Amino acid sequence: MSLTHFTPEGDAHMVDVTDKSVTTRTAIARGQVVMAQHVIDLIKSGQAKKGDVLSVAQLAGIMGAKRTADLIPLCHPLPLSKVSVQLELNDRGVAIEATVKTTGQTGVEMEALTAVNIAALTVYDMVKAVQKDMQITDIRLVFKDGGKSGRFAAEE
Amino acid sequence: MSLTHFTPEGDAHMVDVTDKSVTTRTAIARGQVVMAQHVIDLIKSGQAKKGDVLSVAQLAGIMGAKRTADLIPLCHPLPLSKVSVQLELNDRGVAIEATVKTTGQTGVEMEALTAVNIAALTVYDMVKAVQKDMQITDIRLVFKDGGKSGRFAAEE
Amino acid sequence: MSLTHFTPEGDAHMVDVTDKSVTTRTAIARGQVVMAQHVIDLIKSGQAKKGDVLSVAQLAGIMGAKRTADLIPLCHPLPLSKVSVQLELNDRGVAIEATVKTTGQTGVEMEALTAVNIAALTVYDMVKAVQKDMQITDIRLVFKDGGKSGRFAAEE
Amino acid sequence: MSLTHFTPEGDAHMVDVTDKSVTTRTAIARGQVVMAQHVIDLIKSGQAKKGDVLSVAQLAGIMGAKRTADLIPLCHPLPLSKVSVQLELNDRGVAIEATVKTTGQTGVEMEALTAVNIAALTVYDMVKAVQKDMQITDIRLVFKDGGKSGRFAAEE
Amino acid sequence: MSLTHFTPEGDAHMVDVTDKSVTTRTAIARGQVVMAQHVIDLIKSGQAKKGDVLSVAQLAGIMGAKRTADLIPLCHPLPLSKVSVQLELNDRGVAIEATVKTTGQTGVEMEALTAVNIAALTVYDMVKAVQKDMQITDIRLVFKDGGKSGRFAAEE
Amino acid sequence: MSLTHFTPEGDAHMVDVTDKSVTTRTAIARGQVVMAQHVIDLIKSGQAKKGDVLSVAQLAGIMGAKRTADLIPLCHPLPLSKVSVQLELNDRGVAIEATVKTTGQTGVEMEALTAVNIAALTVYDMVKAVQKDMQITDIRLVFKDGGKSGRFAAEE
Repeated sequence: MSLTHFTPEGDAHMVDVTDKSVTTRTAIARGQVVMAQHVIDLIKSGQAKKGDVLSVAQLAGIMGAKRTADLIPLCHPLPLSKVSVQLELNDRGVAIEATVKTTGQTGVEMEALTAVNIAALTVYDMVKAVQKDMQITDIRLVFKDGGKSGRFAAEE
Repeated sequence: MSLTHFTPEGDAHMVDVTDKSVTTRTAIARGQVVMAQHVIDLIKSGQAKKGDVLSVAQLAGIMGAKRTADLIPLCHPLPLSKVSVQLELNDRGVAIEATVKTTGQTGVEMEALTAVNIAALTVYDMVKAVQKDMQITDIRLVFKDGGKSGRFAAEE
Repeated sequence: MSLTHFTPEGDAHMVDVTDKSVTTRTAIARGQVVMAQHVIDLIKSGQAKKGDVLSVAQLAGIMGAKRTADLIPLCHPLPLSKVSVQLELNDRGVAIEATVKTTGQTGVEMEALTAVNIAALTVYDMVKAVQKDMQITDIRLVFKDGGKSGRFAAEE
Repeated sequence: MSLTHFTPEGDAHMVDVTDKSVTTRTAIARGQVVMAQHVIDLIKSGQAKKGDVLSVAQLAGIMGAKRTADLIPLCHPLPLSKVSVQLELNDRGVAIEATVKTTGQTGVEMEALTAVNIAALTVYDMVKAVQKDMQITDIRLVFKDGGKSGRFAAEE
Repeated sequence: MSLTHFTPEGDAHMVDVTDKSVTTRTAIARGQVVMAQHVIDLIKSGQAKKGDVLSVAQLAGIMGAKRTADLIPLCHPLPLSKVSVQLELNDRGVAIEATVKTTGQTGVEMEALTAVNIAALTVYDMVKAVQKDMQITDIRLVFKDGGKSGRFAAEE
Repeated sequence: MSLTHFTPEGDAHMVDVTDKSVTTRTAIARGQVVMAQHVIDLIKSGQAKKGDVLSVAQLAGIMGAKRTADLIPLCHPLPLSKVSVQLELNDRGVAIEATVKTTGQTGVEMEALTAVNIAALTVYDMVKAVQKDMQITDIRLVFKDGGKSGRFAAEE
């Protein structure tokens, strides 16, 4: 078995998808920012106000999805037909889920994962002044559909 | 206590650092991509060849650090005087560490964390065809120095 | 009535256009930079030379149209099949018109409006040393065609 | 009198500021999105919910300020030490004000104006489905301080 | 004969390709970085190690191809279905070849040429400390297929 | 002798310049687009009109200089205090020269070279419809000053 992002000669390349069929593709990714209870409380208290940690991070995640091919060297640039990012407070901190769709020749797992990562970094940025040992963790693909490799649903 | 990224009225803003002193600042962040043994073996086998998962991800991480202020809405744009990203295989997958330095008015924690995130996403992208349930995890700040809030070293 | 850029739960998202049909779409936007007569005269006198305020702004507008999805958080990234920007001196200053076309699932109003805005900002930048109280004004959509909502032509 | 963005030979160039002194510089710009009363009401009704037109546009404006040198051809890239964007509903629609600071060799008028423009475009984008003949208008500099040309305050 | 990137009135514009047919298009470009023998030897000696001038430049070239429409004012943004960049040492220095494919309405010559340019600049950057009078040279299109103008193969 | 962009362990990194002194630095680069006489004539004939191949390329070169750190993986991001790009027709085609200045901790050779490359690619793009076998050639540093390594002037 070998890695498709390298040629037999060992060169990194952007895989040729010219002959792959154009299908509707969906990917859902999740992740978690782990923080102390007092930080969770601080974020919760801000939700009553106009500004809100979670909605800033939501927007950053959506915009991040659109930058995926700029950031990940061997990712194909492709139009996105839907991006949504949900953040909610749970007892460990902030849970993030991103859903991305396209109609194209490659999947959008990286776009969904990038959205989660950028949203998580943005949460971190906004509360880092009050806790220095937070963690961004459990970032993974939970669902994928469309394309030749078919449907994938993580066991959670 | 309140969050500095919001005004008292609840508006998100990029904090005014005009009057903060210009000092040398360093940040080190770490993270982990968790993968199956057969994927670790596959990456290891590629290291003998010209192309290499770890060196592609290393470069993506360095370039990612430079995009931090573009990606994280309330981050200050600032020149960076050093970025290095190390990746190595361990028994859980790929361990990542990024070190960033600047001489400026704000810290570079977010730049170091962004470098780790983008490097982790790039590792993920290159091996996702052979394992669909990898995780990006344990992303955290391990060291920070410079600026008013002083030195921080995580207990590891 | 409600805003499509928010879910019923109030989350901002990039609307799902996966099932919208792919059609040819056109949008035309206009705007004006209002300036003093002596600035108009200065721009006019430069047109005889190699460099020219209006042609610099024209190019900036065309390039700006291509950055729309990077700048407007909930805009879909989409390929553009035509962008043109016209600038001409009138008795109030500089009049700008941008025309954008695509064959895709969403309209290009925002691309045309962004082209006008960036062209206007560029005109402003180049002459701001000689007048500090210019205004960018009257930016609006004047024509739109294609897609489900059909043709729109502003009354002017 | 002549335009500094062109050489005597008529070539556009990024002006040499190497020998200008490094000072603290501030700029404040304002603008307005003009819309119908029913759209104003719709935005107002959304403010009670989590998602909010004005806070999405606020963030887009802040991020837009950081992209100024990418968008305006002859603008100098420079670090920003503060960016804030305020939006509020008035009887004509949405009023926008942006404040930008730097410690550098050139002013930040263009950054403040770009923030206002991008925030205005984002407001427009989010409500364009309910009104097609909105206008972005009255974008102007209202205050500027620092640097050789000194303080400017618009008469309002 | 006239240039398609200008209207009859002399305005630069992004040519309207709305009515061009969507076909598979390929372009191959080549270039050379000319350097002294001791620099060639230095690069060669590094190929045994983990890090490698040629693989860093390869990745930069691939990423550069994706930025073409951002860099070249009148280029159409378009999705790319394949990008590969090869670099090899020859007796004059480093030879570069880039291959790009798309399925779209315009060709990808500029993407292939941009990949070669950015890869060449990256090679230059990494060895400039040891030789100050290198040259980037012989950048040209060697093959092009697809679209109305048909196949082109350079005589080499 | 070894390459500074790699650590002793062979990892690519952005070199630590934290302790380098801040000085004024200048770089001048040149290059040439080689084309047929009929293309030279076509460009020359366009110079009488509003739009002009050389002024579009000039602007693209200036904007390209500002993108250098985004494009070249191991380049330091740094503010630029001057960018100018000159293009002129000679008997081989178009000659390009770029001058860049900064006050910073690293030189601006790569910025000057990137400006020349992007300007050359833009010239190429605009006339490629009329000649398919043009070449971009002779791109080199001609002058450099400031910083520890001192002054360099190419023998021409």
